[in-house]
Amino acid sequence: MKPYAFGVDLGGNAIKIGLFQTTGNLVDKWTIPARLEDRGSHLLPDVVDSIRAKMESHSLSWESVEGVGMGVPGPVGQDGTVLRCVNLGWDVLNVPQAVRELEPAIEKLQVANDVNAATLGEMWQGGAQWNNSAVMVTLGVGIGSGIVVDNKVFVGSTGAAGEIGHMCVNPKETERCTCGNYGCLEQYCSDTGLVRSAKQVLEEMPQAASVLREGEITPQAICEAAKKNDPVATEVLDRFGQLMGQALTAVACTVNPQVFVIGGALSQGGMVILKPIETYFRRYAFHAFRNTPFVLAELGDDAGIYGSVRMLFDDVKLDEELELGLEELEL
Amino acid sequence: MKPYAFGVDLGGNAIKIGLFQTTGNLVDKWTIPARLEDRGSHLLPDVVDSIRAKMESHSLSWESVEGVGMGVPGPVGQDGTVLRCVNLGWDVLNVPQAVRELEPAIEKLQVANDVNAATLGEMWQGGAQWNNSAVMVTLGVGIGSGIVVDNKVFVGSTGAAGEIGHMCVNPKETERCTCGNYGCLEQYCSDTGLVRSAKQVLEEMPQAASVLREGEITPQAICEAAKKNDPVATEVLDRFGQLMGQALTAVACTVNPQVFVIGGALSQGGMVILKPIETYFRRYAFHAFRNTPFVLAELGDDAGIYGSVRMLFDDVKLDEELELGLEELEL
Repeated sequence: MKPYAFGVDLGGNAIKIGLFQTTGNLVDKWTIPARLEDRGSHLLPDVVDSIRAKMESHSLSWESVEGVGMGVPGPVGQDGTVLRCVNLGWDVLNVPQAVRELEPAIEKLQVANDVNAATLGEMWQGGAQWNNSAVMVTLGVGIGSGIVVDNKVFVGSTGAAGEIGHMCVNPKETERCTCGNYGCLEQYCSDTGLVRSAKQVLEEMPQAASVLREGEITPQAICEAAKKNDPVATEVLDRFGQLMGQALTAVACTVNPQVFVIGGALSQGGMVILKPIETYFRRYAFHAFRNTPFVLAELGDDAGIYGSVRMLFDDVKLDEELELGLEELEL
Repeated sequence: MKPYAFGVDLGGNAIKIGLFQTTGNLVDKWTIPARLEDRGSHLLPDVVDSIRAKMESHSLSWESVEGVGMGVPGPVGQDGTVLRCVNLGWDVLNVPQAVRELEPAIEKLQVANDVNAATLGEMWQGGAQWNNSAVMVTLGVGIGSGIVVDNKVFVGSTGAAGEIGHMCVNPKETERCTCGNYGCLEQYCSDTGLVRSAKQVLEEMPQAASVLREGEITPQAICEAAKKNDPVATEVLDRFGQLMGQALTAVACTVNPQVFVIGGALSQGGMVILKPIETYFRRYAFHAFRNTPFVLAELGDDAGIYGSVRMLFDDVKLDEELELGLEELEL
């Protein structure tokens, strides 16, 4: 294995890039703007230019670079074809091919959905180490999930595996989700879902004193209030836990992962977010997976660049690392 | 590849065995009793004896047999270890090892959960041909499901992948499921679930004329009545479709299969069973998998022996067949 590799997290707001040693050490990370004009056609050239500039400043040549891994915010086929990426302005695009045209010297190129990449990152150096199957749930503006089985990201036949944000959890809902359906998990348990839920609970519990009656209701405010046992915030997160717990038992019934990783901006709430999910999961879960562990993501916004690099290693490699690690633990 | 193979479907009521040509042709099939006494210790010796006797009657030697595939009604690890199989009286048992001790001449041995094996069977020669990922749902006394991705059965970290019968679809249920939980899919959509639902609907719709008010209420009677537009039976199957449709969107959100196969005894109801599931699935589904096809299982009780033999072939083989088949279709 060559000594260096690059991990790229291509987002609609910014592009994050990391230079790693292939031993796993993050040497340098930086962010460049995401120029979305002209149907996102500047994005890949900008990435390649930025990597070239960084290589020059570190006196690296392509001979010492194992490859480039990339996470993108949309469905990605097995061969790295992005099937449509609204946030970047892309239609169908074979990313490895497009990057190779820009820089033929890149030896390995791997592309995956950003949440899938983040899941691999958390399994490699984050909250879900020592597992070879995991489901990571990212709670933020939307709800995404990454599914990794036998250290491989799980794509699905139309790239929609892990779209649990659009799992229908309430067929009786009368408001529409952004996807056009009614009753999606995202409508209740995302950032905006939590705020909506808080407004409802405030109305339903007019007698309850709550700091949420003053000032702007944000997910952060809800979490902070819950930490101080605010009755409204506690009720909001209890309802959140019921729906998340039930949704994740459906996921466990299907893929039965070794571990659930809770990430995304909302996961910064820590235990007031994790605990209700875990409580209701255990209540609703079938006995064969009732004890599936729940962990918080640890790499934050860096999970994507870690996982993108992780994709460049084959599975045998990781299994060796895993065994090595376990042996070390036994000493 | 050698010319013959055996497929075994080890059930708690009977053991079904098939002698196949490895071209896929079923040469002979027969059933032997499942002797459950002495903790199921007679089952494997009986299977091996029965196969030996059949080989003698067909003048076959082990040199012409590719191997033996086996489906069992319980969770099975990747190496063929059955993790506990209440119906057979087995605790933890490494089936390939146990069979090899009985007959060292068997070259290949593959063991899987019976529903997983049936799913492979339907993909090989049944309702779900030309797909490499599928979810098969078996509706009968219980509800099981088999998940196949890239032509490999999907086991899960504790062997519980596909346990959708115990997906919690109604946390407010007050009656317990056999598993000890409340509100499992099985409580509403299995054989007994449908009968229970029919009794409820009859009570809720006292004015509605229905043949279900006379005689015994069975799943068959419900399906027959629904075919004649009986209002109670139609309502029963509509509720069934709502729950099944919603549960299967959760499955699709997670693994996004190419096709759903509906099998098990209840699937003999045909379109009155399939249609409500499909209708509500499409209503609740995220657009990326809204058009996932639904098909009825075609191999009936033989799916298990077909799939057990299919497990003996590696994936390349099937992909070649697939391409060959598609070429033939194009002619």
